[in-house]
Amino acid sequence: MITLADVEAARDRIRHAVRLTPCTLSESLSNQLGCEVYLKLENLQRTGSFKERGALNRLLTLGPEDRQRGVITASAGNHAQGLSYHGGRLGIPVTVVMPETSPLIKINANRSFGATVVLHGTRYDEAALEAWRRRDVEGLTYIHPFDDDLIIAGQGTIGLELLDQVPGLQAVLLAVGGGGLTAGTAVVMRARAPNVQVIGVETRAFGVLERSLHAHERITVDPAITIADGIAVRTLGERTFPMLQQLVHRVLTVDDEEIARAILALLEQDKTVAEGAGAAPLAGLFRIAPDLRSQKVALVVSGGNIDVNLLARIIERGLLKAGRMVKLTLALLDRPGALARLAETLADQRANILEISHNRLSADSRLGEARVELTLETRGEDHIRELMVELGAKGYQLQRVH
Amino acid sequence: MITLADVEAARDRIRHAVRLTPCTLSESLSNQLGCEVYLKLENLQRTGSFKERGALNRLLTLGPEDRQRGVITASAGNHAQGLSYHGGRLGIPVTVVMPETSPLIKINANRSFGATVVLHGTRYDEAALEAWRRRDVEGLTYIHPFDDDLIIAGQGTIGLELLDQVPGLQAVLLAVGGGGLTAGTAVVMRARAPNVQVIGVETRAFGVLERSLHAHERITVDPAITIADGIAVRTLGERTFPMLQQLVHRVLTVDDEEIARAILALLEQDKTVAEGAGAAPLAGLFRIAPDLRSQKVALVVSGGNIDVNLLARIIERGLLKAGRMVKLTLALLDRPGALARLAETLADQRANILEISHNRLSADSRLGEARVELTLETRGEDHIRELMVELGAKGYQLQRVH
Repeated sequence: MITLADVEAARDRIRHAVRLTPCTLSESLSNQLGCEVYLKLENLQRTGSFKERGALNRLLTLGPEDRQRGVITASAGNHAQGLSYHGGRLGIPVTVVMPETSPLIKINANRSFGATVVLHGTRYDEAALEAWRRRDVEGLTYIHPFDDDLIIAGQGTIGLELLDQVPGLQAVLLAVGGGGLTAGTAVVMRARAPNVQVIGVETRAFGVLERSLHAHERITVDPAITIADGIAVRTLGERTFPMLQQLVHRVLTVDDEEIARAILALLEQDKTVAEGAGAAPLAGLFRIAPDLRSQKVALVVSGGNIDVNLLARIIERGLLKAGRMVKLTLALLDRPGALARLAETLADQRANILEISHNRLSADSRLGEARVELTLETRGEDHIRELMVELGAKGYQLQRVH
Repeated sequence: MITLADVEAARDRIRHAVRLTPCTLSESLSNQLGCEVYLKLENLQRTGSFKERGALNRLLTLGPEDRQRGVITASAGNHAQGLSYHGGRLGIPVTVVMPETSPLIKINANRSFGATVVLHGTRYDEAALEAWRRRDVEGLTYIHPFDDDLIIAGQGTIGLELLDQVPGLQAVLLAVGGGGLTAGTAVVMRARAPNVQVIGVETRAFGVLERSLHAHERITVDPAITIADGIAVRTLGERTFPMLQQLVHRVLTVDDEEIARAILALLEQDKTVAEGAGAAPLAGLFRIAPDLRSQKVALVVSGGNIDVNLLARIIERGLLKAGRMVKLTLALLDRPGALARLAETLADQRANILEISHNRLSADSRLGEARVELTLETRGEDHIRELMVELGAKGYQLQRVH
């Protein structure tokens, strides 16, 4: 197990080239949740995530020959980008093996930093096998994304910064995938601030830590889909698991709906873009805020590399859930003026029309009637209720779709 | 005209209660644009914009009686929130007059800080008249959003921070609405760093500064619509205009398309949420980057208070424009299996289907044919071209909608 000294050595090694990211008090989340909420904005690192810390620490401890031959990893995500960026900067050749199905935007991100990208297989496991094969054949150093003492120590530098930036810190919530970030940070807390509660948050789709703790051994789970793709890891590390067993005080599992709500809150209230894994700690805090009442709580917003298309969909779903958008269908007489009268009623109720479709031929409309599907911008559930009552009073037969 | 000493006094007054926001180097924008681009993240202020600076400076210079009676303003935007927040904190009564049509979310934001919100009239001008009437009747102090020396000095504190945070700064781009932010910052640059080029960026929908400079007098323009609502100001201030005339080196006008592109770039590359006005400086830099080649350039991201619904629409439009999403319509034989074959071809081309509608009864389809409208996720214009060639080769008659 690594020690505080390893993390301090990592900090001295990487501090010149990794950002000391801001850790800002979120007043709106604090007011809403009843505790002092600080956001450690690792999404503002150059490659959009904390993974640079471990990657750089590992690169800077390579011997001269290993440096020259280069390194290899299998990852389509933030670890690969951190490695590619700092490898490129230091003149260390980096090879990244990714599944053939990886999004072009991720392939290009690594290439833009000068890495060699190899596309192999259709799943992560196949890419990893290819990376190991090349390691052996080409004499490269394989750099694991989390199960490596130097990687863990590098990620732990976040813990040192948190203690400097939030004097009197009482709890920290971190997303758990392979466990490197949480293990490294927990080492710092145990040594320097043992009263700080370390809370791991994982995605329900995997839930590897909770199950492994329960079984007292590392469990491997089936592949699954989650919007927190940065922590979609099927098994904890050999090195990280015993550390997490010993050092983590509490584990929470959150589902995609909760993570989406947290992404939207960070975007809207704190003006910052978090990927699923980066928002998972807030999703966890939404759940347990009463337990941390009046405490100083830090959330590690570990990364911001989210597909903007997904972000647009999360916004829309979030608005629907919060009653700030509603979809209704209703029957309308199929004659001139009917739509105009409906539009007027909606305008009187100050419901802004976002989308409308008017269909005379749906299966559930009668002859002489058209079915109208409306997407409206609304001001919350009360407004939606008033609106539906008013439309009902005017004789419209309507149904709420969402 | 205010002096450097006024701005320095403002800084000493407000520094304990206004954030020293980060000013971070954007590596991706720097690489893309060929200059060193720094982002002054005023969207991370507590109320999501720089307006707190001037508001607080003004509040702290009220005499004891004026403090007790309270202040009033007419604004639905960031100025009102800055005033409400700091007034609430200091125990100074704040009244905000807004048009009756103001979004509930803005009304609630001010109320949550303890302000009294009065809804009056349907346009800003009517709200302002009501605010003046109440000022006279109730003995309140009216606080103008920009045409006030103490407000200008407060906003200018951004200039002092920029010089500390970016040694060797060569140019700064700022959004111009009423001109308070730009005038205040320009005073600092003239006194402390006269070689720094001060570039004002305004929205084409108004373009008040360019027209006023041309006319050598303050011009009032017609009301208009822009996504940069924070700088939708119809006339410059009596105090700000002569300062801008004398101190601004260059003026750019940008349109909503350019601003939307800048919002998306900040969101995707820099993980930060900017409102239209906050992204306008980047829109300006996109235009003139070659003129600032290799220079150290700061963009003031003045605020992040954007409706998330609008943000979702900006993302989608941006993806369409960049060829990362495409809408196609095509004719399909109206028989079993036809759609399955189409879906297979799309899968072979790795175009992800986002939306599909299948309509047998559109006016431009022949009998026995259905018209299919597809929204696909694509990897850029080259991918769209390949895809269209491939679909054409398979006999589909297709049209690109966007």
